[in-house]
Amino acid sequence: MPDKIVKMGRASNGQRPVMIAIAGDSAAGKTTLTQGLVDALGSERVTAVCVDDYHRYDREERKTLPFTALHPDCNFVQIMEQHLQMLATGQPILKPVYDHSTGSLVRPELVEPKEFIIVEGLLPLSTKLARACFDVTVYLDPIEEIRREWKIARDTKKRGYDRAQVEAELDKRVPESEEFIHPQRTFADIVVRFAPIPGRNDPPETPLSAELLLRPTVRHPDLSEVFKVVDGRAMHLKLRRDEDGRPTDALHVHGYAPSADVEVLEKAIWADMSGEDTVPTGLGMLGGDVRNEPLAVTQLLLLYHLLEAAR
Amino acid sequence: MPDKIVKMGRASNGQRPVMIAIAGDSAAGKTTLTQGLVDALGSERVTAVCVDDYHRYDREERKTLPFTALHPDCNFVQIMEQHLQMLATGQPILKPVYDHSTGSLVRPELVEPKEFIIVEGLLPLSTKLARACFDVTVYLDPIEEIRREWKIARDTKKRGYDRAQVEAELDKRVPESEEFIHPQRTFADIVVRFAPIPGRNDPPETPLSAELLLRPTVRHPDLSEVFKVVDGRAMHLKLRRDEDGRPTDALHVHGYAPSADVEVLEKAIWADMSGEDTVPTGLGMLGGDVRNEPLAVTQLLLLYHLLEAAR
Repeated sequence: MPDKIVKMGRASNGQRPVMIAIAGDSAAGKTTLTQGLVDALGSERVTAVCVDDYHRYDREERKTLPFTALHPDCNFVQIMEQHLQMLATGQPILKPVYDHSTGSLVRPELVEPKEFIIVEGLLPLSTKLARACFDVTVYLDPIEEIRREWKIARDTKKRGYDRAQVEAELDKRVPESEEFIHPQRTFADIVVRFAPIPGRNDPPETPLSAELLLRPTVRHPDLSEVFKVVDGRAMHLKLRRDEDGRPTDALHVHGYAPSADVEVLEKAIWADMSGEDTVPTGLGMLGGDVRNEPLAVTQLLLLYHLLEAAR
Repeated sequence: MPDKIVKMGRASNGQRPVMIAIAGDSAAGKTTLTQGLVDALGSERVTAVCVDDYHRYDREERKTLPFTALHPDCNFVQIMEQHLQMLATGQPILKPVYDHSTGSLVRPELVEPKEFIIVEGLLPLSTKLARACFDVTVYLDPIEEIRREWKIARDTKKRGYDRAQVEAELDKRVPESEEFIHPQRTFADIVVRFAPIPGRNDPPETPLSAELLLRPTVRHPDLSEVFKVVDGRAMHLKLRRDEDGRPTDALHVHGYAPSADVEVLEKAIWADMSGEDTVPTGLGMLGGDVRNEPLAVTQLLLLYHLLEAAR
């Protein structure tokens, strides 16, 4: 059965799997972004791997250690590199499993590479060998205020912590987040920032906007035709410098634009990128029935890169 | 810390680790043989790996399956091959762990290759890729009556079974033992059989004798000088055909010979093989203070092969 899956993945594109990295701090939105890509491509074509499973210590052991789970010394980084190389060359791995609900390291699981491999986690871009495995790399960089809200909401609902515990953990992690997580931003082809638009006083229920830095480290789709037919209220593209001075395109997708407008826009982008009329389903979902259009546009762009790399 | 160990291992011989396989059925004596080699070489130079940790199912799951733990389908054989290749090329692995006392698959552990790697288990010689990793290969082939006694003694003392359960399990395993375990005998450079000497009526407390088939698939030490100084009571070498007709040397080490005689013999063998006067300590131990001289001679020969391959 495992062999069959490997062969399916290989047969369908006749080459090695396509790999994307989605890096970012805890609760930056990695799993949500990943889920839309899996739904759009179909789980039979996608292997999703969370590299936070490579924790070296369980939650109990970490209590006595001078660093948090963000620190490379707290993870089997060399084994992560080895397993990413295995997957990139089409080989299965026996992946460790960290149970977030209990904080324990448990029985490992067999992971077979399919046609596409999505690798998300805290440190997938932390070493050169790991980075060399990916066709396209993403760093999720929501503004800190938003990420704290997201982490508090998730860890109190799903991981059994109370609000004060999560806030204490967030504070404790600041130095290691700055030292080990944030530097991965520089290695991403695409940096995604979810935030309200500065300077506007949108009501709090307004969906968040997204700013996507499309760096010239990979070839992005040509959106010039799209911008001829949509107006700048929903989305616009600006040439600018990144915080380190490097030239980049910045694509702004506005959360306050009417959904109907953004859907027209998504169709135009997808048709232009793929030549197909029907936008994949499952994009932009935040959980339940809530949809965020800037997230959907982000996922569309990533789908473009995955499908391009598979050609 | 892990990097340091790898470098130590590499620095000391300037090459890839030396690997030996010790294959054999359950309770054939693999761990006892391994322990003497680890003690003689020093645990800082040896990595010992049990490939029975690559069980695909835990004890509870196996109850509902149509095969026993001996069946290749009951093991992650492809992952075992991958990990053996990693170790053979000096890379660490995150090895699965099967807890024999509870029958559960638990948290995996980091294994670093040192100068010597001893791989023991049910199936280390079951595939061509796995066999390609070894410098020397051993198959433990005690007569079935002895192995059953050993398994009953161990599993009732250390693994929480009663005698009837172990006997039932032994009977259930016969077809898969014949189909998957025994065929590995043909791929071993050395086949070790512990047994009483047929045709002699030694009292039951007489230590078991060993017959070692030294096949011409590797270069064995030249024992001709040794045989000039020891008499044939303790040990003799015969040219014969194996059960499949292939030519082999058969070294017989007699359990009934006086310990003092065999110790003289061990010194002579070791001096001849290694040029050193002092026989390594820790050989021949059966647990507690019980020593078996034929086991010590077997381990001496394996040490010779390990040290030769490391030159």
